[in-house]
Amino acid sequence: MKATIITIGDEILIGQILDTNSRYISRALNTHGIVVAERTSIGDNRQQIIDTLDRALAQSEVVIITGGLGPTKDDITKHTLCDYFGSTLRYDKIEAEHIRTMLERRNIAFNELNRSQAMVPECCTVLHNAHGTAPGMWFEREGRVVVSLPGVPFEMQHLIDDEVIPRLCKRFELREIVHRTMITFGIAESILAEKIASWEDALPDHIHLAYLPAPNVVRLRLSAYEVEGKEVSREIDMLFDKLRTIIPDNIAGFEDASVEELVHNILINRGQTLAVAESCTGGTIASKFTAQAGASAYFLCGVVSYSNESKCNVLGVPMSDIEQHGAVSEEVAKAMAQGAKVISGSNFAISTTGIAGPTGGSKEKPVGTVWIGVATPDKCFAVRKDCGTDRSQIISRASAYAIAMLYEELK
Amino acid sequence: MKATIITIGDEILIGQILDTNSRYISRALNTHGIVVAERTSIGDNRQQIIDTLDRALAQSEVVIITGGLGPTKDDITKHTLCDYFGSTLRYDKIEAEHIRTMLERRNIAFNELNRSQAMVPECCTVLHNAHGTAPGMWFEREGRVVVSLPGVPFEMQHLIDDEVIPRLCKRFELREIVHRTMITFGIAESILAEKIASWEDALPDHIHLAYLPAPNVVRLRLSAYEVEGKEVSREIDMLFDKLRTIIPDNIAGFEDASVEELVHNILINRGQTLAVAESCTGGTIASKFTAQAGASAYFLCGVVSYSNESKCNVLGVPMSDIEQHGAVSEEVAKAMAQGAKVISGSNFAISTTGIAGPTGGSKEKPVGTVWIGVATPDKCFAVRKDCGTDRSQIISRASAYAIAMLYEELK
Repeated sequence: MKATIITIGDEILIGQILDTNSRYISRALNTHGIVVAERTSIGDNRQQIIDTLDRALAQSEVVIITGGLGPTKDDITKHTLCDYFGSTLRYDKIEAEHIRTMLERRNIAFNELNRSQAMVPECCTVLHNAHGTAPGMWFEREGRVVVSLPGVPFEMQHLIDDEVIPRLCKRFELREIVHRTMITFGIAESILAEKIASWEDALPDHIHLAYLPAPNVVRLRLSAYEVEGKEVSREIDMLFDKLRTIIPDNIAGFEDASVEELVHNILINRGQTLAVAESCTGGTIASKFTAQAGASAYFLCGVVSYSNESKCNVLGVPMSDIEQHGAVSEEVAKAMAQGAKVISGSNFAISTTGIAGPTGGSKEKPVGTVWIGVATPDKCFAVRKDCGTDRSQIISRASAYAIAMLYEELK
Repeated sequence: MKATIITIGDEILIGQILDTNSRYISRALNTHGIVVAERTSIGDNRQQIIDTLDRALAQSEVVIITGGLGPTKDDITKHTLCDYFGSTLRYDKIEAEHIRTMLERRNIAFNELNRSQAMVPECCTVLHNAHGTAPGMWFEREGRVVVSLPGVPFEMQHLIDDEVIPRLCKRFELREIVHRTMITFGIAESILAEKIASWEDALPDHIHLAYLPAPNVVRLRLSAYEVEGKEVSREIDMLFDKLRTIIPDNIAGFEDASVEELVHNILINRGQTLAVAESCTGGTIASKFTAQAGASAYFLCGVVSYSNESKCNVLGVPMSDIEQHGAVSEEVAKAMAQGAKVISGSNFAISTTGIAGPTGGSKEKPVGTVWIGVATPDKCFAVRKDCGTDRSQIISRASAYAIAMLYEELK
C-alpha cells in the first residue's frame, strides 16, 4: 500500500516556513504499514494542484494533502478539490455551529468568511476538526483515497491520529513496516562500513540497511516493508545480536534515542540527579533534557549565566578567575559546573562557556571556542572544543558535546 | 527562471529526519530571483531518481538535488546521475587529497570507501566541499543545470552559498523576487480579512497577498515574482502605508521577525536588560533569546528552577508560598520573576511555572496549566494560561505567551 503526501502553500516553496507536517504524516503512515512513495510541496496554484493529484493517484492508493484550507482568498485547495471530484459545495450546519462556538470562546464574531469554512463538497466525508475551524475532507475514487487536511500542525496532527489513521486501517488491509535502529558511537562511517561489510552483504533481500551519520554517532537502520511484523522483528533481533559481536565497544543504544534520552534513562534508573550551567549554549542543554517527560525526576536546576555577574552571584564562580583567565576558560568552565552542582545539590553537572559569535572572538579564542565542564560525584574537569563558525551551529555542537561528555562519564 | 528541489533519502520518507535542507535552498534561490516551482522528497531508488529528474528538467531550468552521496552502499545518487548523463567515473586527485586530510585531522584512516568518494563523473564540474568528504557536482544539459549536493545540512549550506548561488548568478540572467511581510497582532484572521478586503481587492495583478496565521499573530505577505525589484519594493511600501491607516493598532512589525526578535531589538535600543526564570519551559525561553546574535547586551541570566529547592535557593521563592499555593501558582510565578530580576539586577524578568505533563495534573490544575509572571521596573504580575495537552506544545505555547506578554509591556 503506497501513499503520496502533498503539502500546499507558497510559504513552503519560498522557505518562509519549515514543513514539519510531512514528517508527522510520514511517521504515522509508516507506523501503520503504509509506504510513503513520495512527498511533494507545491504552491497555491490550481493547475499545479490538479497535475500533482493526477500523478499521485497514478502511483499510490492513498493521497494526503495539507494546507490551503483557511478562510482567506489565497486558500484555494477546497474549491480545487471540489471541482476535481466534480462536486458542488454544501453548507454543513454541524461544522458551522462548531466554528461559531470556537470563535465565540475567543470573542471573535462569526462572519461571512467563517461561514465559507463550513461549506464542504457534497461528495466528501467531513472529518471533524475539533481543534480548529477548517474541517478535514475524505474523498474516494476508484478504490483510492484522497484526504485534505488543514496546514496548522496541531490541527493536522489531531485529524491524522483521530480520524485519518483509524479510517485507513478500517478501509484497507494493511501489512506491516518494520524499522529498527542501532546507534553506534565513536566510529567513523567509512570505518564502520568496512568492519561490518560481510554482515551487510549477508543481509536477506527483504531487509534494507541505511547509514545515518551525525557528529560522533552513526545510526544503522534496518527496514523491511509490508511484511509479517513479528517474524521480521525476530529476524532483525538476531541480525543485531550478530552485529554486537563485531562492534561490541561501539553500541550506544537502540532505536532513535538521542544521547540526551540515553542520559535521561540512566539517571532515572540510578536515581541520580543533574544540574546545568550554560553560558554560550543559552538554555539549549536544559531545554533538551526538560523536553523529555519525567525529567523532573533528575533535572534539578539549570542556570543560564550569560553575564559575568550572574556567573559569580548565582553560581559562585570567583570573579578573580574571570579576571585572570577570561570568562571562556578551563577555570571558569570547571567553576560553573562545580557551582551548579553545589547550589542544586545534584550528583552531576555540566557547563558550557564559549564564544558563539559572530563577534567577540580573538586570535587565541576565535569564535567557536567552547570550554565544556563536567562535575561528577568525585571529579571535575573541562575540555576545550572547537564548535564551528556559525552561531546556531556552535550552540548546537557545544550542547551535543556537553551531553556526550556526560554520557561518557555515566556509561 | 524556475527551479525544482529534490531531496533523496529513505530517512526522509519514513519521517526519521526532518527535511530542513529544502527550506534553506528555497530561501537561497528566492533571494536570488529563482522561483521554486516544486520540492520533492523521494527514496534511495534508482528508477525514482531518474523519473523525478526527467519531470524536474521538463518543468524547470535548475534542479538542485541533495542526499545520497555518502560512502556506503545505500547511497546511490552519484552512480545514478553518472549513468543519467551517460558519463563514467574518474578519480579526482585533488578531492582525494582533501578527503585524506580531513580524515587524518580526525585520526581516521583513508580506506577504499573514502577512495570511492573521490570518484566523480567525467562530465560534471566538481564543487569543492570544504567542510566534508562528499564533493558537490554541477551538470549541464541543453541549457539546464542539475546540481547534486551532500545531505549533511552544514556541508550543503556552504556549497549553496559559496558555489551554487554564485555560479547560478553568473550562468543565468536572473530577475528579482520581492517578498515583504507585515506582522499583525491581536486580530483574528477572518476579521482581519474582512477589514482589509477592499485594500486586498485593489492589489495590482503582479503582487500577491498571503495570510500566515499563528497564535496571536497573523503575517501578511506581499510577493512579486521576477520583477524590477526596486520599483516593486516602492510599490509595496505604499501599499503597506495604506494598510497602516486601516489597521493602525494591530501592526507589530515587519518582515519575518519573531516576537523574541522584536523584544531583542527594543531592549538593545533602550539599553535595558532581561532575566528569565523558567520551570515548565525548561530553558526554551532563554535559548530563544540567546540564539540571537547580540543577546549578551541585554540577556543577563536565566534560571531553570525545575526542583522546588532551586526555586527557593536560587531564586529566593519563599518555601511557604510553594507549600501554601503549590509550585504552579500565581504567587510562585510572581516570586520567580521578582527573584530573577533581583539576583541578576535586570530591568525586566519573565517566569513560567506549569504542568507540562503527561503526568502531574489534577482537577484544579490540569496538564497544560501554566502561570506566567512578568516583572517590570515598577510592577510584578502573573497570568494563568491554558497551554494545551501535549508536552512539547505546552512548552512552546507557554514560551510564546511569556515572550508576548513581555512584548506587550515593552510596546
